Amino acid sequence: MYTETPQEQVKELLHKAEEAFQYLKGRSAIDRAGLMYAIAAKIEGLGTELIATAMEESHLPEARLIGEKARTVFQWRSYADHIKEGLCFEARIDTAIPDRTPPKPDLRKIKVGVGPVVVFGASNFPFAFSTAGGDTASAIAAGCPVILKAHPGHPKTSALMAEAIFGAIKEEGWHDGIFSHIYGNSNESGAYLVQHPIVKSVAFTGSYGGGKALFDLANQRKEPIPVFAEMGSVNPVFALPEKMATDPRGLANQYLSSLTLGVGQFCTNPGVLIAVKGKDLETFKEVLRQEVLSCPPANMLHAGIAKAYHANSERMLTESTIRVIGKAEQIAAEGQGAALLVETDAKSVVENDALLEEVFGPFGLIVACESEEEMLNIADHIKGQLTITVAATEADAVRHSKLISLLQDKCGRLLFNGMPTGVEVCIAMQHGGPFPATTDARFTSVGSDAVQRFLRPISFQNWPNALLPDALKNENPLGIYRTVNNVLTKDASAL
Amino acid sequence: MYTETPQEQVKELLHKAEEAFQYLKGRSAIDRAGLMYAIAAKIEGLGTELIATAMEESHLPEARLIGEKARTVFQWRSYADHIKEGLCFEARIDTAIPDRTPPKPDLRKIKVGVGPVVVFGASNFPFAFSTAGGDTASAIAAGCPVILKAHPGHPKTSALMAEAIFGAIKEEGWHDGIFSHIYGNSNESGAYLVQHPIVKSVAFTGSYGGGKALFDLANQRKEPIPVFAEMGSVNPVFALPEKMATDPRGLANQYLSSLTLGVGQFCTNPGVLIAVKGKDLETFKEVLRQEVLSCPPANMLHAGIAKAYHANSERMLTESTIRVIGKAEQIAAEGQGAALLVETDAKSVVENDALLEEVFGPFGLIVACESEEEMLNIADHIKGQLTITVAATEADAVRHSKLISLLQDKCGRLLFNGMPTGVEVCIAMQHGGPFPATTDARFTSVGSDAVQRFLRPISFQNWPNALLPDALKNENPLGIYRTVNNVLTKDASAL
Repeated sequence: MYTETPQEQVKELLHKAEEAFQYLKGRSAIDRAGLMYAIAAKIEGLGTELIATAMEESHLPEARLIGEKARTVFQWRSYADHIKEGLCFEARIDTAIPDRTPPKPDLRKIKVGVGPVVVFGASNFPFAFSTAGGDTASAIAAGCPVILKAHPGHPKTSALMAEAIFGAIKEEGWHDGIFSHIYGNSNESGAYLVQHPIVKSVAFTGSYGGGKALFDLANQRKEPIPVFAEMGSVNPVFALPEKMATDPRGLANQYLSSLTLGVGQFCTNPGVLIAVKGKDLETFKEVLRQEVLSCPPANMLHAGIAKAYHANSERMLTESTIRVIGKAEQIAAEGQGAALLVETDAKSVVENDALLEEVFGPFGLIVACESEEEMLNIADHIKGQLTITVAATEADAVRHSKLISLLQDKCGRLLFNGMPTGVEVCIAMQHGGPFPATTDARFTSVGSDAVQRFLRPISFQNWPNALLPDALKNENPLGIYRTVNNVLTKDASAL
Repeated sequence: MYTETPQEQVKELLHKAEEAFQYLKGRSAIDRAGLMYAIAAKIEGLGTELIATAMEESHLPEARLIGEKARTVFQWRSYADHIKEGLCFEARIDTAIPDRTPPKPDLRKIKVGVGPVVVFGASNFPFAFSTAGGDTASAIAAGCPVILKAHPGHPKTSALMAEAIFGAIKEEGWHDGIFSHIYGNSNESGAYLVQHPIVKSVAFTGSYGGGKALFDLANQRKEPIPVFAEMGSVNPVFALPEKMATDPRGLANQYLSSLTLGVGQFCTNPGVLIAVKGKDLETFKEVLRQEVLSCPPANMLHAGIAKAYHANSERMLTESTIRVIGKAEQIAAEGQGAALLVETDAKSVVENDALLEEVFGPFGLIVACESEEEMLNIADHIKGQLTITVAATEADAVRHSKLISLLQDKCGRLLFNGMPTGVEVCIAMQHGGPFPATTDARFTSVGSDAVQRFLRPISFQNWPNALLPDALKNENPLGIYRTVNNVLTKDASAL
């Protein structure tokens, strides 16, 4: 049933998407928001079949999937609210000054959709980052048709979600090229999509290897296009001395909970913790060693991910500078992942990049530093991350201001205590970070600002009012904020 | 005097820029605006020596250079105003909901500078797109140090401009790594800069070959970085039938003036005009033929550009489908360019991409279409452009809505009548367009939105108020617009 979509059919769907892009230009953002609310309602209406199917395909527990479904619905609704409000299209109007020398023309700028977008479904969030996930929602919000490549890990779940989207599009009477759903297991099928001239942008969440390959293909095109690949990271936690001294046990428990949450299969899993050597760190490690014993192994998303987790953990254990702190007592069955905690020293991680590579799963590396200076060296050395956490008291933070300043250059989200798992869907969220966490640190893939990825500005010079897009007409029929002669206003009376 | 800066010295300057980037984080946007006003005043104070030097090096006339100097000063001042106003940093605050399950954290997002930026000076605007040009001003506005590679066509002009910037930095007491000025003629010196790990972004205005080479180098880095290359275009003018019938003579004069302005050396030079065959087009061409006779050849920017203009025009004339309409009577002396107008048919341009390649200089190609359908074919076929002009009556525009919709996908600025030369510095300007006009259609290189190229967002989760950047503090000490719980406001009372 879920066999690879033949290339001939993919080609047809791409041409339909191109047609739909022209069609979408004739519909306003308010119209699109209406369609998005209808899609949200359809997804909300998917009942126990969706959850049961996703549980079977992804091995994720029911409660998590119910929560993820609500999050997915919320994404559609909040991104729809966002485009209705309209500030995101950044309307700018500079009126003419005809008697200036030379005369100043009338210029009006607005952001529009870039064109058809290819979205690759992710394995670890079968709802929120997959077929009907945030990438699809933000591309449609931007006015871009989506060609969705279902993740092979959960084809039935994808089909159910796709049916919900198709249903809303049909009932609301929109062009059916707005959303296409295809299957493909091979690298070739992905490459075909990314290289096709109709495609103007790509969104991907997954491994570094996959994301980087798509990025390279997109840049080698005759017309290069942007690729928004979120490729994960090790999300370091810098545990500062006073904090570590205050509550080593609490911090250890909090760290272990976050590390093992969802069998460690979050992009924001805190895979590395850095602290200064001493009795407090010894206490911290001792708690980890004891507590990890009773962590039950659990099914990972699919067999391939479990296999990779075992291989990558084994590879880490072959590194001469790595020592085991502790591991789950119960042996992992096939397809399962078990928590594993190891340690090394600061010098080794600075000298050996392999130690800071992501091991996708419940794998934690504790880096013991000789001094606070060594912490700074690590901060300077680490690559781009989705998140960095500073576990600190306020006094720690004041004392380590240089460290905290450096860490800002290396991440998209900087936490003061707490743990990075849990990515809130809101406009202040930045889910994205410097390479290799993502291919473009200037954009987020979570929160309504995700819409920006698929927009580009166009200026209209001296157009008659009646022929301008509604957002730029004198009378401001959409009632949105606009920057008119450098002042932000909804007022149309000056025009 | 202006010999290549040795690589050892370039390396030192890069490390100074890295230091300056950390320093800049401690200074507010309001501080940076102050420095920018001081730089503007220094440039304004450069007297006759600057104009005389630029005239000698660029062969541009005095009036043009005086205008360009004023434009350059205006760029510094208006971008400074823009960052002081602060909306461009897109502050977003979502407050915590501690009693939600799970608790909602406090999230606050702000845009910060990406890091050191390399700017390549352009040849055709020795002030406004060169050493102290818009790229330099927008990078410093964003909080990024600049390493400026002077264009070898005007080293003395560059040195004078650099001195003005150095002077302001010194007098205002800023870190001297904020701006570095280097010389280099070789491709290797450019490659070294773009490949250096300290460099986080690149801005370039020039040829397709140069821009694309930098783009490829930047993407092949271990850590790819964005390149904002503005690589010119042919800026097609679509002359619609009713407009052409109404005033073929006026349109011809307007077109020729724009084409020959500044010896055709503008990125927005209207190199191609498309119209439907008939007696009106014949009248239009006849006026061109007569008027071009008396266009005097003039010195081009430098010998290399004049040579390329002659070679490219000659290459066009060897194309079998190209016929000459008319040319300047007076023969061009060495280093000069003379206007040349040629024609071809729609079928030929669709079949032969070479005909739509840019000939940098006063070279115009008129494309005669059999039908309005052929105009649509051309619209569908053309690559990305900085500008497209629709010469039309309102009735023409209504009748050709499909054409106009297609043209929006192919340009950054769409004009209704008028000519595209003349790029207003204002926030509603989009100077940028789909590839190959630029490498990134999502950003502009003219107008205060140019600052966005060098910014990226970072989220702070659960930080104590005192440790947040000023822009995100509860009390809104900068008094800027912020999106607080999805509402745009300057009000701090809710926090």
